Amino acid sequence: MHRENSNPDAMLYPIGIVRSTIKSRKNAPKQGLEDAPDAWLDVSPAVIEALDGLSVGDDIIVLSWLHQANRDVLKVHPRSDPRRRLTGVFATRSPDRPNPIGLHRVTIRRISGNRLRVGPIEVVDGTPVVDIKPVLASVNDD
Amino acid sequence: MHRENSNPDAMLYPIGIVRSTIKSRKNAPKQGLEDAPDAWLDVSPAVIEALDGLSVGDDIIVLSWLHQANRDVLKVHPRSDPRRRLTGVFATRSPDRPNPIGLHRVTIRRISGNRLRVGPIEVVDGTPVVDIKPVLASVNDD
Repeated sequence: MHRENSNPDAMLYPIGIVRSTIKSRKNAPKQGLEDAPDAWLDVSPAVIEALDGLSVGDDIIVLSWLHQANRDVLKVHPRSDPRRRLTGVFATRSPDRPNPIGLHRVTIRRISGNRLRVGPIEVVDGTPVVDIKPVLASVNDD
Repeated sequence: MHRENSNPDAMLYPIGIVRSTIKSRKNAPKQGLEDAPDAWLDVSPAVIEALDGLSVGDDIIVLSWLHQANRDVLKVHPRSDPRRRLTGVFATRSPDRPNPIGLHRVTIRRISGNRLRVGPIEVVDGTPVVDIKPVLASVNDD
């Protein structure tokens, strides 16, 4: 990756952290609906106001920073299956990619102060959260 | 926002740039399906391998860096309508938010070397692209 292109403004700041029973990447399901558990999102008290308007039952998209990813990987065997041909990471959901942002569509189960109980979500305990967005049914979840 | 939390690894590097006929944020539609045009994604030659596996007709999610956003905003009037009550940005798709990452679900119209023609997409010309992901129908587009 050509990091001389970097823009000093394009730094992500965690707005929260995932607290999950998944303790290592090896044990994480590949996608949320494959038996992933619910987890807590501990949202930073500094941004708690930004949660106003979210309710239990809402579907949201959690954007995570997949901090254990390898950013130099451009091709992978999909789903780590060596029988599948090497494929560009932009055609896969591999966590290994130049900017390892994870997208997780989850349902809010409970809200307790600055903590959201959400699921199912497949990320490991300690993963930083960088954004939360509502699912927009009217425009096809874009 | 408490930027002392910053993680020096969580820096985004552009993997491409949007070339659009939308030249200013004021003229941008609020969401992709409201008469937004198609645009070119010029992908960095350094990561061209990562496109392998994408085809014309595929639906993808483009992650952009909304470089004109105000990162200190925590509440907004949805859709800039002053009649709507102030709402936390995590319950809206406002570009103004702590980490202004945009999600754009688009269709690939054409592939020409390192350029993808995609649409509809509502971002302004010159917006950096930070990731491209396939839509996963089997797991409900998460």
